[in-house]
Amino acid sequence: REQSMKNARLQSVISQIKRLCRKRKIDGDQPNEKLQWKLHICSENNFPTAAGLASSAAGYACLVYALSKLYGVEGDISKIARLGSGSACRSIHGGFVIWNKGDAEDGEDSSTEQIAPETHWPELRVLILVVSDQTKHTASTVGMQTSVETSDLLHQRLQGVPKRIERIKKAILRKDFHSFAEITMKDSNQLHAVCLDTYPPISYLTDTSHHIMQLVHAINQDNSSNMVAYSFDAGPNAFLFMQEKDVPTVLDILHYFYPNSDPHFIRGIHVPGKHDTHVDYTAFSDIKVIPRALKFIIHTKPGPGPSVQESDNGLLTKDGLPK
Amino acid sequence: REQSMKNARLQSVISQIKRLCRKRKIDGDQPNEKLQWKLHICSENNFPTAAGLASSAAGYACLVYALSKLYGVEGDISKIARLGSGSACRSIHGGFVIWNKGDAEDGEDSSTEQIAPETHWPELRVLILVVSDQTKHTASTVGMQTSVETSDLLHQRLQGVPKRIERIKKAILRKDFHSFAEITMKDSNQLHAVCLDTYPPISYLTDTSHHIMQLVHAINQDNSSNMVAYSFDAGPNAFLFMQEKDVPTVLDILHYFYPNSDPHFIRGIHVPGKHDTHVDYTAFSDIKVIPRALKFIIHTKPGPGPSVQESDNGLLTKDGLPK
Repeated sequence: REQSMKNARLQSVISQIKRLCRKRKIDGDQPNEKLQWKLHICSENNFPTAAGLASSAAGYACLVYALSKLYGVEGDISKIARLGSGSACRSIHGGFVIWNKGDAEDGEDSSTEQIAPETHWPELRVLILVVSDQTKHTASTVGMQTSVETSDLLHQRLQGVPKRIERIKKAILRKDFHSFAEITMKDSNQLHAVCLDTYPPISYLTDTSHHIMQLVHAINQDNSSNMVAYSFDAGPNAFLFMQEKDVPTVLDILHYFYPNSDPHFIRGIHVPGKHDTHVDYTAFSDIKVIPRALKFIIHTKPGPGPSVQESDNGLLTKDGLPK
Repeated sequence: REQSMKNARLQSVISQIKRLCRKRKIDGDQPNEKLQWKLHICSENNFPTAAGLASSAAGYACLVYALSKLYGVEGDISKIARLGSGSACRSIHGGFVIWNKGDAEDGEDSSTEQIAPETHWPELRVLILVVSDQTKHTASTVGMQTSVETSDLLHQRLQGVPKRIERIKKAILRKDFHSFAEITMKDSNQLHAVCLDTYPPISYLTDTSHHIMQLVHAINQDNSSNMVAYSFDAGPNAFLFMQEKDVPTVLDILHYFYPNSDPHFIRGIHVPGKHDTHVDYTAFSDIKVIPRALKFIIHTKPGPGPSVQESDNGLLTKDGLPK
């Protein structure tokens, strides 16, 4: 689909990169003739866009990285990525990234920092459960602004953030999955509690989201230790975290409670063969089976940041037109 | 249905009333021969029990009141009612009642107080929306205990309670519906936010509950002032508050969004004839119509406390057996 370049965020990202490129020239380099070039941008995604899966964060991180390579810009480009999509500043890095809020009132000095590369915890897996009962989308930026203005509970939440960040950082560095899971779930629940405390209230979680939460707690209780964690962003889809060894068990349980005959129900990293995990479902007798509650599941893991592809893999021909 | 009297709460209520009766005797009265009588208790409800509609509060308030009349006990019987069901202490009084928490750690000195009789605001109406997607019930006492132990946000909520109580008291005394509605809705949302912040999270609201909330905010926005307020207890059913003059409009809107052909769909106070409220539904174009989302609606209003019925209306015969 051909789209206009007149998008304000896109223009702001391009002009900031060009500004940095011009700045470098002053230091003695030859004028960069690429600054006169026209740009063709072609983008492809291997997961659904505009479904609350942070596709704009991924897209802007890649775009800003690609532009920085094209114009030879170095240094911290995450601030430029942020102009495209707030959380794109995190996606510039691979692995486990922290977004420090900085000291300025307007957040202008916030910055991102990789606390561990994706190779640090290669066993960590993510199942993205795309639910069928998608609700009307409240744009996350608008929602958060209303929370700041109306939620009494947000104040208490913010006080707890620094301590929580320290604790999850430690859990990640130690690969302590049990603690990682608990902190992740509590933080997700508190975010959505603040949304509900907003006036008028904001609600991203649906009955299916709550059903997934109930199932995860039942799995963890049955396991006597946390095997799975959930996290919900500004939408009803669940992000389940677990260790590689537990993926077959969790997939079996998900197949059991959310039966779905779609041959493409599970996407992403392939888990070979039929599992033989012998789950005892008597421990889950409280939980209802809901056919087709999930549209599909994406199986993925923490990955590296953006990288330049071989030109053979590019999306444009030598003439700069889409292949 | 015949039931055993061995229920611990029931026994505790009966023995406390008898204790107070014996105490009075010491002051010079004749021994009360009724203390030797056997008790037959027969109870009837005109609304659903165990559906999160506070039927045990109503039941214990009536029982304790009836026993106090039988044994000639006077004074504050709300503490005895509380032994049967916490909020029964409020239901001893009619109209608008405040439950003061007291100073003792264990709440033993908490007490109830009528701030206005039901005749103070006779225009106030309540529509109880009994929803179809009833979830598994988390007993409210157990749920609240877990919140006290695990919710960080509860602390902030508790700090705001005294001010909120003062504000809603003032709104009730002034019959300021707009403020009454806003305080009621914010308090309901904050209660459920704390439930979500509990670990593991507690969720009483369903998709239908959230849909009702969204609809109420749309009605109020269209009206430029609050016409309806919602409140949710430990369950998905909505308690909608409004003024008598707005009941036909609200019922029309509810019929439109939750169509239901049950001839007994609306129960309780009768609203005569077909309404002719001319609602302009273009203001609600965001909101989906959901047939049969509600099981039924009870139309009621704040009423008086318990009262002794004429013996002709009693549920037992002269021989003490059910009619």
